[in-house]
Amino acid sequence: MKKKTTIYDIAAKLNLTAATVSRALNNNKKISENTRKLVKQTALEMNYEQNTLARALKSGKSFNVGVIVPRVDSNFFASVIRGIEEELYPKGYHVIICQTHNQEILETSNINSLLNAQVDGVLMSISNAKTNIEVFDSLLQKQVPLIFFDRKREMDGISSVTIDDFNGAYTATKHLIDQGCKKIAHLSNDRSFEIFKDRYAGYKQAILDHGLEFDESLVVESASKIDEGKRITKTFLEMQNRPDGIFSSSDFTALGAIQEIKAHGLRIPQDICVVGFSNEPFTRFMDLSISSVDQSPIEMGRLTAQAFLEEVSIKKKLKVQKKIVLQPELIIRKSSTRY
Amino acid sequence: MKKKTTIYDIAAKLNLTAATVSRALNNNKKISENTRKLVKQTALEMNYEQNTLARALKSGKSFNVGVIVPRVDSNFFASVIRGIEEELYPKGYHVIICQTHNQEILETSNINSLLNAQVDGVLMSISNAKTNIEVFDSLLQKQVPLIFFDRKREMDGISSVTIDDFNGAYTATKHLIDQGCKKIAHLSNDRSFEIFKDRYAGYKQAILDHGLEFDESLVVESASKIDEGKRITKTFLEMQNRPDGIFSSSDFTALGAIQEIKAHGLRIPQDICVVGFSNEPFTRFMDLSISSVDQSPIEMGRLTAQAFLEEVSIKKKLKVQKKIVLQPELIIRKSSTRY
Repeated sequence: MKKKTTIYDIAAKLNLTAATVSRALNNNKKISENTRKLVKQTALEMNYEQNTLARALKSGKSFNVGVIVPRVDSNFFASVIRGIEEELYPKGYHVIICQTHNQEILETSNINSLLNAQVDGVLMSISNAKTNIEVFDSLLQKQVPLIFFDRKREMDGISSVTIDDFNGAYTATKHLIDQGCKKIAHLSNDRSFEIFKDRYAGYKQAILDHGLEFDESLVVESASKIDEGKRITKTFLEMQNRPDGIFSSSDFTALGAIQEIKAHGLRIPQDICVVGFSNEPFTRFMDLSISSVDQSPIEMGRLTAQAFLEEVSIKKKLKVQKKIVLQPELIIRKSSTRY
Repeated sequence: MKKKTTIYDIAAKLNLTAATVSRALNNNKKISENTRKLVKQTALEMNYEQNTLARALKSGKSFNVGVIVPRVDSNFFASVIRGIEEELYPKGYHVIICQTHNQEILETSNINSLLNAQVDGVLMSISNAKTNIEVFDSLLQKQVPLIFFDRKREMDGISSVTIDDFNGAYTATKHLIDQGCKKIAHLSNDRSFEIFKDRYAGYKQAILDHGLEFDESLVVESASKIDEGKRITKTFLEMQNRPDGIFSSSDFTALGAIQEIKAHGLRIPQDICVVGFSNEPFTRFMDLSISSVDQSPIEMGRLTAQAFLEEVSIKKKLKVQKKIVLQPELIIRKSSTRY
């Protein structure tokens, strides 16, 4: 795919700011007549296409790419979107975002809305592991590339970018064992999603590999919410022989766990160590900072966007399926540092 | 505007869940043949229009509404979007979101992208107070309704939903004075935006009304970032006669201020009281919870969506401009509670 000229290219060539180039192209009166002429002449020479609609009509493309996420108000998804934008904007694409609030029905209708908006591709993290697969087929039938990130479905011919959730969970659980935890509970989430199933499997494997007893009653599923973390941790703390470590598949439930442990007058990390997952910013700036597993979301977004660009650049007849798996990184903070 | 039949209406009539209705309409094989027939028959009777594209072609509308915000990873904007969605989904509209990262150039191109995607309206919070006003005119010329929320431009005929930022800032500053603060600094933001100008004005007025000395050197503008709050607070703390109260126009700079004050070994609220603005969730769940001004973002989103619905329901020839101003609420927490 030939790189499209952007206003940044024009700005670099003329040693102007991108804002000045944009204003000149938009006939802003703050820009002198001479500069305007120079910018427009250069834009023409560099084959810059300003009018998206005209460009869309000419190419049969909208240069809009749709991104569907469960929610935008999580740092993880917001950062993935940021990575996607960073990769696509310089190529002349725009990103439009839809959120599903984890409702299957919105997942279906968001796809329809994006098709309706004539997007050139859909990059998505699924909200419901049971969504009718025909929904995705409707994209494929219309030759609109679909790429999954983070929460994916196994589908033939569909590329995906995920992290190694098993390994992230294994590392986090092993870290708790290294800190001396003997009875480690797991705040899990809906395991019909691969990511939560894999985190559970990594946790379990680490327990078994290190000679601890695996106890299914210490694994509880819930939504990724502070209050759910509190509610479940309360039941853990009321056990005769309570856990001394908690590995949570979500930072939000980890935060709830910490609040509940404190409310019971227990100490973190001395009495109970806690590790979350996702490395949401609040885990860093709490007084009692929370250990967590970083998923490099910006990198995930960039790779997702690259997979899309690759798909649109190759010949329609070719089918390429890429499976990219990122390695997560355990960030150790106060909530689990005994030594 | 006649209310459109939604799957929720069909579900209510048949005493089924919305998910079941959706699955039945989408020929999901989990749904029995009888139920599928019943749902489809009822949908037909209730004049339910399933196919958005067909509906769009028939009505000349896309039923997509574009929302443009500076960023999605702030609870404030995410909550406004939530309010917009809650109001628009039941009316059969879908919401597609673009973010500008405060770049003027992206503001312009987002509007073009949304026009290109044939949206029925644009609801936006502006990113740059100096954006060429012609950008907005391009929407109006195409008869696409434009509504501003929170960060607005004064434009004839354009409705807006904002909060009373002056009053919010006045109340917060008066609260600091009531707590015994005598020298109150203000972490401000780019005052070419009305909202930050108004917060500054409310702060200043409260200072003057209560017999304190107004000192311009205690007012510093910065981006809404934790590190900026730290950097500026450091300069405050190095003053011979340092402030004993900080009113911040952002929760993020307030958090930075708190971190810096603690790093200097000073106590909050005993030595310095801090109040932020926006009521981001982290202000509540910090150990040292942060007082903040709540902007009722979900309500703001709902009112913005209602203004849009009103605009599309009235005759094209009529021009209605609504200015809705919400009253903010000061939430007092540990960071400013001396008594």
